Amino acid sequence: MEDKLMLMIPGPTPVPEQVLLAMAKHPIGHRSGDFSKIMAEVTENLKWLHQTKNDVLSLTVSGTGAMEAAIINFLSPGDRVLVGSNGKFGERWVEVAKAYGLNVDTIAAEWGQTLNPEKFRESLEHDTNKAIKAVIVTHSETSTGVLNDLETINRAVKAHGEALIIVDTVTSLGAYNVPVDAWGLDVVASGSQKGYMVPPGLGFVTVNARAWQAYTTAKLPRYYLDLGKYRKDAAKNTTPFTPPVNMFFALQVALRMMQAEGLENIFARHQRLSAATRAAVKALGMPLLAPDTAASPAITSVIPDRVDAEQIRAVMKKRFDIILAGGQDHLKGKIFRIGHLGFVSDRDILTAIGALEATLQELGYEGFTAGAGVAAAAKVIATM
Amino acid sequence: MEDKLMLMIPGPTPVPEQVLLAMAKHPIGHRSGDFSKIMAEVTENLKWLHQTKNDVLSLTVSGTGAMEAAIINFLSPGDRVLVGSNGKFGERWVEVAKAYGLNVDTIAAEWGQTLNPEKFRESLEHDTNKAIKAVIVTHSETSTGVLNDLETINRAVKAHGEALIIVDTVTSLGAYNVPVDAWGLDVVASGSQKGYMVPPGLGFVTVNARAWQAYTTAKLPRYYLDLGKYRKDAAKNTTPFTPPVNMFFALQVALRMMQAEGLENIFARHQRLSAATRAAVKALGMPLLAPDTAASPAITSVIPDRVDAEQIRAVMKKRFDIILAGGQDHLKGKIFRIGHLGFVSDRDILTAIGALEATLQELGYEGFTAGAGVAAAAKVIATM
Repeated sequence: MEDKLMLMIPGPTPVPEQVLLAMAKHPIGHRSGDFSKIMAEVTENLKWLHQTKNDVLSLTVSGTGAMEAAIINFLSPGDRVLVGSNGKFGERWVEVAKAYGLNVDTIAAEWGQTLNPEKFRESLEHDTNKAIKAVIVTHSETSTGVLNDLETINRAVKAHGEALIIVDTVTSLGAYNVPVDAWGLDVVASGSQKGYMVPPGLGFVTVNARAWQAYTTAKLPRYYLDLGKYRKDAAKNTTPFTPPVNMFFALQVALRMMQAEGLENIFARHQRLSAATRAAVKALGMPLLAPDTAASPAITSVIPDRVDAEQIRAVMKKRFDIILAGGQDHLKGKIFRIGHLGFVSDRDILTAIGALEATLQELGYEGFTAGAGVAAAAKVIATM
Repeated sequence: MEDKLMLMIPGPTPVPEQVLLAMAKHPIGHRSGDFSKIMAEVTENLKWLHQTKNDVLSLTVSGTGAMEAAIINFLSPGDRVLVGSNGKFGERWVEVAKAYGLNVDTIAAEWGQTLNPEKFRESLEHDTNKAIKAVIVTHSETSTGVLNDLETINRAVKAHGEALIIVDTVTSLGAYNVPVDAWGLDVVASGSQKGYMVPPGLGFVTVNARAWQAYTTAKLPRYYLDLGKYRKDAAKNTTPFTPPVNMFFALQVALRMMQAEGLENIFARHQRLSAATRAAVKALGMPLLAPDTAASPAITSVIPDRVDAEQIRAVMKKRFDIILAGGQDHLKGKIFRIGHLGFVSDRDILTAIGALEATLQELGYEGFTAGAGVAAAAKVIATM
């Protein structure tokens, strides 16, 4: 049905009407007092969202651009880095590090499994001459819906004492607790089209004092992604290069909405959405890719064994205008992913599960009692 | 007056209502057939605008990001490049080239003067062992309103036979004739918030076969700005990294509007806006920074000698809600710049000149006959 589209993918995520309308305002000059005022408010609220006093810098890039900036500003060619890889995005950071001539050690796990913090601890403990300059970790792996144990991995990095921790929080920030200062996370990257409830087009990087110290000697080449330029101009509430001013209008409204909801409520909502979705999928007799103990608050991946994942996606789209994500790379065709990140309510989960049940009926799948999925989701929603 | 803002700066430029409303549509998934359809149309129309059959790639970056991509994808560390520098943006490309360890020869001119094509010819002719790998030129220098003679410089590059020509057309594309294929321009970069009539947030790079050949051996590190990735995915009407889908909605509408107006009409309109503005400024007795023979179709810089440039900008903003640009770097406070790029009509010029006259009266400037500016602009508009 035209204009009935419902996004249940891990980005772009749904955008509130007031955010969309803010984005449709006529642009203003980016070298104006009016823009600086917006940037000052947005930056302050970004710090609130990141639970940090560090710089939070806004770049005109996708999440990958933000992560690349998070890596290349603090390292030099040949530097040894430890990169966690248990999905598409972990693999991507390995590719970025190699593209820049870094010396990459990978700590891998199967797609769908968590990174083992113990392996990070061992590698870092063995590094007695402190050759490892950075540990690069994806918090919520978007390709699988696995939440890595950032807190424990980070403790091993802190015990090492020298390496920076550089974190991809693209689908965890604004969905799960990421206390940047309390944990001492050195560099943290994310993107607007995820927990921020804003369309794609802005990336964010937080940088603490330790990382800025590393910046002073880091020799990888950069210009557009040179965070020092953004820091210098952010101090005057401006940007080194023309910012997407309409995206800032949108972000201003979205961050106000997030503040009104409150961090604890936002995190609790995402936990509930994730738990309700998982309970429903189990009640429908379909296996989940990620274990319960490492379930992303943002994405639930389902690996159906008696019905085709792509057929489910096709019917959900055609009959109910609900967009689910497919699998990436070797998981293509094998899984589907339900995004429940950002501007997603309990009602949306009931809607999606109801439509999923109807889809399964249409496909002749008989592994569940009709109504069981919605009932299971409703139970979680009623009690969490 | 609230919501009465009128942008007369060289970016962000005014955006048509139908473009703004398209941007406010709810995002769709970027890995969908619907998005691919939009991207196919947009790419086709970008090729029309660039008068090229080359790849035209869309990146989530500002104009600087697009220019950096235009440089770093085709060169290796230590490569010799010839960079034209007669303003802030020329200087910026020198900085980018140096940040990446290129061996930079600069051909400079005073800010407000044109680059001398003869100097390019000499340097290129003397380079008998073909060490110069690229010539980097800003077509319309946004900081001064000078249009460099790209056609003649390009002829010297073609005579050299080896060097690529890499062009910043950020404020010339969509305002002035840039026939990419007819001139054989190898790499051409621009940004959405200029002639495109779209807010900031997208950058564009065209690449021809010769440049792709250079790409295969170019060793500068890159990942997010790696144009090979964009080319590979563009062939399937998709992007390697999440695109700003709402910006594509906007661009789709804006390019349709440009097609309806037609390239020749667009160029003629900008010529007329530039000529009318210059005639008016002269009639007001104020000196122009750029010579008539090198007037940018997009920006007119005025260097007032008997009244303060910043006062003019302040009154224009306060009394008439018209935003003019100031000078950059050493021209700060000395010039003001009138942007007439993109969605700007004859009426807008009459408005701006009328307001400028009123502003000059308010500031007690007596160098002109009241009405002379508007009369001069009207005469150009009536006859061009």
